[in-house]
Amino acid sequence: MMELPRPKSGQPIAELSTPLPIIDEDRLAANIARVQTYMDSHGLAFRPHIKTHKIPAIAAEQVKAGARGINCQKITEAEVFADHGFEDLLITFNILGSEKHKRLVALNTRISGLKVVADSEATVRGLSCAFSQTRPLTVLVECDTGGGRCGVQSPEEAIALAETIAAAPGLTFGGIVTYPKADTEEAVEAFFAATLAGLAARGIPCPIVSNGGTPSLFSAHKVTSATEHRAGTYVYNDRAMARSGHCRLDDCAMHILATVVSRPTADRVILDAGSKALTSDLLGFSDYGMIIEYPDAVISGLSEEHGTVDLSKVEGRRPEIGEKVRIIPNHTCVVSNLFDVMTFHRDGVVTRVEEVAARGLVW
Amino acid sequence: MMELPRPKSGQPIAELSTPLPIIDEDRLAANIARVQTYMDSHGLAFRPHIKTHKIPAIAAEQVKAGARGINCQKITEAEVFADHGFEDLLITFNILGSEKHKRLVALNTRISGLKVVADSEATVRGLSCAFSQTRPLTVLVECDTGGGRCGVQSPEEAIALAETIAAAPGLTFGGIVTYPKADTEEAVEAFFAATLAGLAARGIPCPIVSNGGTPSLFSAHKVTSATEHRAGTYVYNDRAMARSGHCRLDDCAMHILATVVSRPTADRVILDAGSKALTSDLLGFSDYGMIIEYPDAVISGLSEEHGTVDLSKVEGRRPEIGEKVRIIPNHTCVVSNLFDVMTFHRDGVVTRVEEVAARGLVW
Repeated sequence: MMELPRPKSGQPIAELSTPLPIIDEDRLAANIARVQTYMDSHGLAFRPHIKTHKIPAIAAEQVKAGARGINCQKITEAEVFADHGFEDLLITFNILGSEKHKRLVALNTRISGLKVVADSEATVRGLSCAFSQTRPLTVLVECDTGGGRCGVQSPEEAIALAETIAAAPGLTFGGIVTYPKADTEEAVEAFFAATLAGLAARGIPCPIVSNGGTPSLFSAHKVTSATEHRAGTYVYNDRAMARSGHCRLDDCAMHILATVVSRPTADRVILDAGSKALTSDLLGFSDYGMIIEYPDAVISGLSEEHGTVDLSKVEGRRPEIGEKVRIIPNHTCVVSNLFDVMTFHRDGVVTRVEEVAARGLVW
Repeated sequence: MMELPRPKSGQPIAELSTPLPIIDEDRLAANIARVQTYMDSHGLAFRPHIKTHKIPAIAAEQVKAGARGINCQKITEAEVFADHGFEDLLITFNILGSEKHKRLVALNTRISGLKVVADSEATVRGLSCAFSQTRPLTVLVECDTGGGRCGVQSPEEAIALAETIAAAPGLTFGGIVTYPKADTEEAVEAFFAATLAGLAARGIPCPIVSNGGTPSLFSAHKVTSATEHRAGTYVYNDRAMARSGHCRLDDCAMHILATVVSRPTADRVILDAGSKALTSDLLGFSDYGMIIEYPDAVISGLSEEHGTVDLSKVEGRRPEIGEKVRIIPNHTCVVSNLFDVMTFHRDGVVTRVEEVAARGLVW
C-alpha cells in the first residue's frame, strides 16, 4: 500500500504539500485540560471517545490528564487500543455475529476492563451464548433518552433488559449508557433516575451511569445521576462545536491546509481539498468548512479532489493561485478517518507525525 | 497499521462481517464491456478514470477491453498505476508546488505517456520552470464548458493558453479537456469546435480532444470534435447513475453489506453502516442509499458507525435484529476511498480480494 510522504519534525507547515490536516499542539493540550478540569471539579469520571483522533498517543495524553478509561465504537478499534496497553475500554455498540463474538471473547481475555452495550434481548442472547462464567463480559444497557438512534425506549425497558443481563450466563450487568441530544439534561436525568430507582428496588447494583456528547458537555454536571461522561470531538473541536457554543473557533485544533489551484472567474477559486479531505458532512451548515484567511468565502461545493469556493462576498484581497489557506472542518472526526497519519505542529512547525492507528476500522 | 480481516476466496458473502462493500464480478464485466462497445462503435478512444476503483487489476481489465489509457486525479495515484505498468496516464488536475513538480518530473522520466492539464498561466509557468526540453511534459488545456469547476472560460482563453504552453520551454501542448455538466453535449461541441478552429488558424496541432463524465456517457458521440471520452463511475455504477438514466439499478456492481444491530421502535432500525461505510454524499438525494431488500425503507440519517432507517413506509415484513441487508450507495467512488481492500464475488461467493492501492492518495 503506497502512502503519502510523511512530513518531518521541524518542517514549517507552510512548506507541506496539501491537502493535509494538521493539529495545533497547544490547542489540543488546552482542550484536554479544560474538559478534564471541568469533569474533576464536578466529580464526574471522564471517558474520552477515541473516534475523533483514533491515535493511541492522544488517548494516553487524555488518560494522563485524568480520564478514567476510553470509549471505542467497534471491536477492531478496541483491539488497537488494547495493543497499546489500555485496559478500561467501553465499546458503545451492539455486537452481533459469531466472528465478532469470537474476537470479543479473545479481547475480554486480554484486558481486564472490557465493557460493551446492548439494547435488545437479541444482542444479549448472542453475547450470553459466546461468553462463559469463568470470564464473563460486562454489558451495559444503552438507553434512548431522545437521541433517536439506538437504545431502549423507557426506564421500564431498561430495567427489564438489565434483569435479563444480570440473569444471563456469561454476562455481568455493568450499568446504563446514553448518547443524548444536546441540551436535554433534564430528560436524561429523568430517564436515568427512574431506571436507577427501579434497579435499586430490585436489588440490582448499577456501577456505571454514563452520559455522553461534546455539544453540551459543560452542562454535564446537571445530570446528577451520572457517574461518568463520554465525549470525543472536544479533543480537536470543529466548526459544529463552535456553533453549538461548546468552544470558540480559536479552540479548533484541527485545520486542513489547502492550496488554491485554479481561479477560473473573479468570484470563484478552486481548492485542492475536496470530499477526500473534508468529507461531505454538513452537520446543518450549507457549506463545507470555514476558510480562516477568508471568512466571507463560501466553500459551496465539493467533488472528491476539488473544493469550489464562492468569493462573491469577499471584499478586498482575494486568494491567488498557489496560495495556501487553512480550513476549519465542519466535522473533525470524519476527517481523521480519511488519513493514514496525522501531522501535529506548534506555532507552525511540525512537532510529530502520528499514525491514525484505528483508521477505517468499521468492524 | 491494523487492517480488518480479509474475506477469503470461496467464502459465501452471507458469512462475511459487516459493514463491507462488495463488487459483483458479472456486473463489473458487463459495465466494462457495454461502455467499451459503445466507444468502439463510435470511433471514440476511451480513457477510464481510476478514481472509482483505485485498483490496478480493474484498470488492467478496462485496458484489456480496449481502453486507450487511464485518467488519474493526483500524482500519487498516477505513481501507483505507473508502478503497475500503465504508461498512458492523464492527470486532470492543476499541479502546483515544488514538491509535486519534483515528483512529476520523476514520473515523466519513468513512463512515456504522462499528460497533465492546466487552466492558468500560473500553473503553466510553474510546470515550465520544472521541466526541461530533453524530457518535456505534455500539457492539455482544461476548459470549463459549463461544469463550473476548473477550466478556462472561453475558446479565446483556451487558444491563448494553448499558445502559451506551445511556447513554454519544457512543455508540449497536448490538447484540450473538459469535465462537463450532464446533457450539455451541444455546449461542449460548440466550445471545442471554436477552440479547434482557432488553434488550426494558428497552426497549433491539437492531438487530444477529451470529453468526460458518466451521467450522459451514452450521448458522448454527439460531441463530434472529441477524440476520446473519460469516465470513472460507469465501472461500478451507483444510485445517482441509475437516477441519471445511465444504467439500471441492476447494473450497480457495488453493494454495501450491512447488519441490523438495533430495532428500538417499530418504525426504526439501526444498521452498522454509517458514514464510515457509505459516506455522507447525498448527490441530490434526501437519504443515504437504497436498501435492496426493503426499497421502501429510508436511510434517513447517518452517524459514523450507525445508519438510521425509517420503516414507516414499509408494508409487510420488516427487518429483524441480526438480519443482513445490501445497500446501493448514492456514490460509489467515495466508498472505495474508505476501505483498504475491496471484495469481489460471483453469485454470492467471494472470487478475490483486491487492495485499493490508490486509496487516500490526495496529493
